[in-house]
Amino acid sequence: MDIHELTRGLNVDNQSKIVLVVSDGLGGLPLRPGGKTELETARTPNMDALAERGVSGLMFPVLPGITPGSGPGHLGLFGYDPLKYTIGRGVLEALGIDFDLGPKDVAIRGNFCTVDETLAITDRRAGRIPTEKCVELVKKLRAVRIDGVELFVEPVRDYRFVLVLRGEGLEGDVDDTDPQRVGAKPLAPKARTPGSRRTAEIAAEFVRQAREILKNEHPANMLTLRGFARKPPIPTMKEVYGLKAAAVAVYPMYRGLARLVGMTMLPPMATVEDQVAALKKNWDEFDFFFFHYKYTDSTAAMKPAVLIVTGDHSTPSKLKSHSWHPVPVVLAADTCRTDEVKQFGESHCLRGGLGQFEARYLLTLALAHAERLQKFGA
Amino acid sequence: MDIHELTRGLNVDNQSKIVLVVSDGLGGLPLRPGGKTELETARTPNMDALAERGVSGLMFPVLPGITPGSGPGHLGLFGYDPLKYTIGRGVLEALGIDFDLGPKDVAIRGNFCTVDETLAITDRRAGRIPTEKCVELVKKLRAVRIDGVELFVEPVRDYRFVLVLRGEGLEGDVDDTDPQRVGAKPLAPKARTPGSRRTAEIAAEFVRQAREILKNEHPANMLTLRGFARKPPIPTMKEVYGLKAAAVAVYPMYRGLARLVGMTMLPPMATVEDQVAALKKNWDEFDFFFFHYKYTDSTAAMKPAVLIVTGDHSTPSKLKSHSWHPVPVVLAADTCRTDEVKQFGESHCLRGGLGQFEARYLLTLALAHAERLQKFGA
Repeated sequence: MDIHELTRGLNVDNQSKIVLVVSDGLGGLPLRPGGKTELETARTPNMDALAERGVSGLMFPVLPGITPGSGPGHLGLFGYDPLKYTIGRGVLEALGIDFDLGPKDVAIRGNFCTVDETLAITDRRAGRIPTEKCVELVKKLRAVRIDGVELFVEPVRDYRFVLVLRGEGLEGDVDDTDPQRVGAKPLAPKARTPGSRRTAEIAAEFVRQAREILKNEHPANMLTLRGFARKPPIPTMKEVYGLKAAAVAVYPMYRGLARLVGMTMLPPMATVEDQVAALKKNWDEFDFFFFHYKYTDSTAAMKPAVLIVTGDHSTPSKLKSHSWHPVPVVLAADTCRTDEVKQFGESHCLRGGLGQFEARYLLTLALAHAERLQKFGA
Repeated sequence: MDIHELTRGLNVDNQSKIVLVVSDGLGGLPLRPGGKTELETARTPNMDALAERGVSGLMFPVLPGITPGSGPGHLGLFGYDPLKYTIGRGVLEALGIDFDLGPKDVAIRGNFCTVDETLAITDRRAGRIPTEKCVELVKKLRAVRIDGVELFVEPVRDYRFVLVLRGEGLEGDVDDTDPQRVGAKPLAPKARTPGSRRTAEIAAEFVRQAREILKNEHPANMLTLRGFARKPPIPTMKEVYGLKAAAVAVYPMYRGLARLVGMTMLPPMATVEDQVAALKKNWDEFDFFFFHYKYTDSTAAMKPAVLIVTGDHSTPSKLKSHSWHPVPVVLAADTCRTDEVKQFGESHCLRGGLGQFEARYLLTLALAHAERLQKFGA
């Protein structure tokens, strides 16, 4: 029996609220042995108060030593085993622009780039063209026509766009065309499986027609395609956890991830204050709120049964990237077994009552503390 | 390879003794943040001495956030994955009255209830009739005869009884007849699989004859049937751990669970003193003793190679029920890596050398510390 079979049978609706606050990339490293981490250095009176009232710990986003991208990082937080449900980058990008992906669609992330007369890439991001320019170019790309497949081209931001192929017999196992370095030519799309050959052919034809359309543009005179993927079949949070869930998130990527597990999107908002206002306004309508933000030590007036603050992965400034280091987490509820932690930081959380655990168990812990899970077995 | 395949190949008999003391529902919560738990408040000089000599930790009975019933709680302690081996309610109830269930028997939990003239239930527990009345009614129900199947009706307690169907071709996937609310009629027993149709037919006929027998009784003039189940196929502790195991337990439920994994039952006993005497008397006959008791801080004279004290689940007085909070555990053996824990309590065990772990690994830890497991691999 897997954990979702278990929770499907045990969850109860008791009208309690659960708020999961995800601070992007929370968790870091001291710059010197014995030093303090970024979080330990910051002044965080609100989160410290939460740590005192709640129970703390450290979470492995996936498994010890595994550095997660935002996809696996969030799936874990939402209570899905990130090794069981894998999401291609194209799918993430499409979900992030509110694109309604069908189950057979192949989604691809596109980047505008700059090439010289030999087709060698001179700028992989086409000078980071503004989004308005991206929108304009995407409109031109909609002139591409390929027999037997419906094409959708949608702008994302700056030099990024999404291409979706809709048709029969398309699979997503196709290599990126981005050579990942300046000076090389874009690669031909290459199928890794027989079932993906048709996808590769369509992608190649799309690139050919697109190059014709773009060749006199500057600096975005070419494109690369990455992250070919189909949407994975994934049960909703309502199905497996009995939660009517809403996402209060600004960035498309996180909105897309939340939509993948069936969350309702609250309208896009620009600031943390807007997000808090959206939370208040929709308080009665949902059981669970996923609140994603770039870090600040803020507090809100609502009183959920369970309030969790954590991150989707560590991002030590020393490494200047996502990392595998376990992420601090604090869970506050009247039902928690409090610990000695009175400050929210990595070294304090290490001594917390939640111990070190895999992120995919966070949701069962949240449900338990909200008294939304019945006893298992007699 | 699962853990049992591993231990089957590695276990050795070295005549060492292992004693697992399970204190019912050990583990709780502080009433206020920063306060002490029930266990931390209690005076426990014997267990504190054990903690000082041994290695401590906290156990998840099933997984983080999952509250176990006594069934899954004990299966974990006995070294069985409680998500792999699930026990139906009827089986637990039958085991709990020392009923010797056969491998093909279907066990069902029965409740006497009260219905009005339209057969609508007015009291799902028949006014909680006393056990003596239950015994009397059960005797009357033994008059029921159904072709091709042997029926056993046994009283449990108050309004509860057990019905066992013994015959060929009976499976246990049948829905409860209890509508779970007052005002509704008992449901017809409904098979969820073709293999369970015969069971459903027999149950329907049993209910029909039973209603005739009970119709002039008051208040128990009807019954409902719940938790249809067969005994799960489960290897014995001798098979997977090489242990000749005995149960020293007072309550039927725990005796039943121990019998399920092949333990020998020492005769029922009324007090902890009786239990200790039974342990002494049978010391040479067994390798492993499961000693279940309602909490006291006691000590015994025997010197097992490994002595473990723990609980089957937490039961915080604040929640007045089983809970998901991890359960304190201490393991004392000459082979253990001692830690700094000198007091047996939740916050101390949190800092113990066993860390936090799933209960299903307790038995391998016990075997290891008893030097009953060989090296795995060359």
